[in-house]
Amino acid sequence: MKLIKNSAQRLVPEVVNGQKQIPFKGVGKYKPDGRIANPPIRSCSFYPEDGNKLVKTLKEALKKAGLKDGMTISTHHHLRNGDAVANLIFDAAHSLGVKNLRWFPSASFPCHSHLLRYLHDGTIHHIEGSMNGPLGKFTSEGKMKGMGVLRSHGGRYQSIQDGEVRIDIAVIAAPTADSFGNANGVQGKSACGGLGFALADSEYADKVIVVTDNLVPFPCVPWQIQGNNVDYVVQVDSLGDPSKIVSGTTEMTKSPDRLLIAEYIAKFMDAAGIVKEGFSYQAGAGGINLAVILFLKEIMKKKGVKARFIRGGSTKYLVELLEDGLTDYILDGQTFDLEAVRSMRDNPNHVMTSPFTSYNYHGKGNFASIVDAAILGATEVDVNFNANVVTHSDGYLLHGIGGWQNCLFSKCTILAIPSFRDRIPVILDEVTTLCGPGELIDVIVTERGIAINPRRKDLIEETMNSGLPIRSIKEIQKEVYEICGGPPAKPNVDKSKVVAIVKWVDGTVLDSVYKIK
Amino acid sequence: MKLIKNSAQRLVPEVVNGQKQIPFKGVGKYKPDGRIANPPIRSCSFYPEDGNKLVKTLKEALKKAGLKDGMTISTHHHLRNGDAVANLIFDAAHSLGVKNLRWFPSASFPCHSHLLRYLHDGTIHHIEGSMNGPLGKFTSEGKMKGMGVLRSHGGRYQSIQDGEVRIDIAVIAAPTADSFGNANGVQGKSACGGLGFALADSEYADKVIVVTDNLVPFPCVPWQIQGNNVDYVVQVDSLGDPSKIVSGTTEMTKSPDRLLIAEYIAKFMDAAGIVKEGFSYQAGAGGINLAVILFLKEIMKKKGVKARFIRGGSTKYLVELLEDGLTDYILDGQTFDLEAVRSMRDNPNHVMTSPFTSYNYHGKGNFASIVDAAILGATEVDVNFNANVVTHSDGYLLHGIGGWQNCLFSKCTILAIPSFRDRIPVILDEVTTLCGPGELIDVIVTERGIAINPRRKDLIEETMNSGLPIRSIKEIQKEVYEICGGPPAKPNVDKSKVVAIVKWVDGTVLDSVYKIK
Repeated sequence: MKLIKNSAQRLVPEVVNGQKQIPFKGVGKYKPDGRIANPPIRSCSFYPEDGNKLVKTLKEALKKAGLKDGMTISTHHHLRNGDAVANLIFDAAHSLGVKNLRWFPSASFPCHSHLLRYLHDGTIHHIEGSMNGPLGKFTSEGKMKGMGVLRSHGGRYQSIQDGEVRIDIAVIAAPTADSFGNANGVQGKSACGGLGFALADSEYADKVIVVTDNLVPFPCVPWQIQGNNVDYVVQVDSLGDPSKIVSGTTEMTKSPDRLLIAEYIAKFMDAAGIVKEGFSYQAGAGGINLAVILFLKEIMKKKGVKARFIRGGSTKYLVELLEDGLTDYILDGQTFDLEAVRSMRDNPNHVMTSPFTSYNYHGKGNFASIVDAAILGATEVDVNFNANVVTHSDGYLLHGIGGWQNCLFSKCTILAIPSFRDRIPVILDEVTTLCGPGELIDVIVTERGIAINPRRKDLIEETMNSGLPIRSIKEIQKEVYEICGGPPAKPNVDKSKVVAIVKWVDGTVLDSVYKIK
Repeated sequence: MKLIKNSAQRLVPEVVNGQKQIPFKGVGKYKPDGRIANPPIRSCSFYPEDGNKLVKTLKEALKKAGLKDGMTISTHHHLRNGDAVANLIFDAAHSLGVKNLRWFPSASFPCHSHLLRYLHDGTIHHIEGSMNGPLGKFTSEGKMKGMGVLRSHGGRYQSIQDGEVRIDIAVIAAPTADSFGNANGVQGKSACGGLGFALADSEYADKVIVVTDNLVPFPCVPWQIQGNNVDYVVQVDSLGDPSKIVSGTTEMTKSPDRLLIAEYIAKFMDAAGIVKEGFSYQAGAGGINLAVILFLKEIMKKKGVKARFIRGGSTKYLVELLEDGLTDYILDGQTFDLEAVRSMRDNPNHVMTSPFTSYNYHGKGNFASIVDAAILGATEVDVNFNANVVTHSDGYLLHGIGGWQNCLFSKCTILAIPSFRDRIPVILDEVTTLCGPGELIDVIVTERGIAINPRRKDLIEETMNSGLPIRSIKEIQKEVYEICGGPPAKPNVDKSKVVAIVKWVDGTVLDSVYKIK
């Protein structure tokens, strides 16, 4: 395997799963010159005149869609750890004796460990998409036949749009659908909120199968997925486990350290002049993020300011802001709890977004760079503000990128991180895997202080008299190393064996993930 | 000019404006085998990071978009006869000295007679799009430099999607927009309802300019047009004359003959078993159509049935059905009066549709064929149920096709026509211009009786004991000829000079329009 050094000084393979790659050239440096993917022209004369595209079983739909060896099957992850559909697809593929499939999910979850058997027996050749938990571990151990490809949500859209990944069959789990294929995620017993992660799949895949457990008469309104892009519709008893699709409620952190980080972030945003009438920020569903919402809420109320929009991952905490009149809009990419599903269903100001609107770097702009501040996590950061979200310091691949890389383009990107986890320091000299270049990361907030990227002289000046514990990142690192007894052990990996690559938002290769020895 | 005979026995040119054509092959017979159009891959690095795409003037935006001789400029017609934007575009183009443009509107109106000067002086080479009124007359007289191309709304989407028409610059008049280019038609002083006719333009044009007279802070919600497809945004004082954009109110017909036709249609639909729980139909905004709504409403109330959806052209009459609980949804392609604009803005069950969802024949099905009944007009029909909507019997091109051809695919297509107009019979032996093949037209309703296409034995049987005046089409024709003194005079046209062609929904050429001598 030939590795070359990219502009971030990381070694990356030239060819991945037989496809030539472009190494990372620097943020905003790669200028694409091709044209977007163009599916075949279809004709209504090939489809039922009455609009009824129902097929009895998923297996039959896969056969009709022409499933064969080596094809690419895509799925979305809006059903999260409650999803049964991806497992059903590969059960069907296995029973049809099909081999060497590429699975292209927008993310995978522990519920998909069922698929390990198909990775072992050759039904699935490899996975391109985040591999959370067991599938990540399997990959790290070098057991996957092909190489993993990790992309951000925006990068996934970009890869489909640009023709880098051609999807043969997209299977879209839909909590509600009609027999024409119009579908949404806001109604039905498996309601999950938006279905934006399946948008690119529906637009560009050769064949599109909608699978639903709530078939309604035409028209299914709203149609988050348009039946005009759908070939077959399959009705099943259940898409999965509703209690794992959305939480009944989302949990706020109770850790004093994490609450302190959240408080620092809210105060920092205020001190930096971000919290003002008409501002915007990106909230997530992690424990610290939820706490930030509450601290910000207090500041907003005290100052009497209202946000123009908040980007979610949405939860009941965001919904409260909307319903209390503290933001005009929620622009929502992913809906995490029942209250947020209800709000998206009933409130026109709780708007579904897709990776196309929010994150696709190969569009005429996207929403991510318009956001005033984004609060994100990381598994590791380094003294140059580079960050990692996919591997741990032991080298294991355990997380997906999600929208993380895309959100780095906000006007002020803040990483919320505890300075150590299980006595392993989080601020290193160099991150194990590079997922986000330091030039895009403005602020790192730990329970031991706030480090501002020296590039952001404006933020340094704005906040210098704020009374907040603003420190250099090396100073925080030193303190943590003293507590933990030095840096973490180097990961025990075989640097000649790449098991997965990390793509940048423009489709270039940013870094490699290596096999654990 | 070489003309060849297509499968409808009509003579059509082989080449139009330098582009080779495919002659009509029969309904559902042409099987496309190409791939859809694929615009260049863009990158966020080419666009402003803060999302602000504002440019001072339309002229500057056109220059930035690279306007030059021979380009194709597209516009939509949601502002109808109140539109000022198309005129502003060509004023700017003229002042820049640009020549030989192709104007590709979704429709043109009498307000665009301002553009005759640019057709004369060579700024505009030719128009592809419906030419209502003065521009149609100009074309009929053989004065346009290029050949007119008439397409249905669905055919226009198809032609863009399939790469048949490549739009260099789309200019989208938007009653509300943000500086990123997100836009809608439901808010602002120039509110017109939906903006669906501009969808294909926004998706496939090389450059997209949004022009608005109501700029709002990001995000403009709803975004009927997505800023991710937009290059430049221009703020102007006024998009046009609001009183001509939507009517304050839509007028019901008062003519006894037309009311009788409307009553026959409603009764026929009932007798044919169409008016039942969960049915659907397509209503228009013409005087007869509006009356049909009222007659149907009475029948629905008496029977206690509710429609699942009604397709509009929407007006206050449809809105009343929705608000009275007589239909679950309005699926709306075009919004005609203030009440309908309000309803689309405020009622989530009044849903905007686009030619992609409703009419595109080169998709995986569309909504048109799902509709139980469509009620349409015609300028002429013939004894074989063929119909014409673009020319009059004197040969003059005076109307566009609109969604008419697309709606012919409904399960029961009913033409509502007075049997003569200005003492000119409307039922001929052969239509002047063929716009809709008779095999798709099921019923012709005149004030002198109802003619059912002999192919529809089911409808004939269902309604034979209804007491309705069901007659053969020839019988009605004979009666009308007696009243009017025979068939109308043959149009005085030069059959060697084609001034425009009529496309079928699949992009093939259905018929020719000839120069008036």
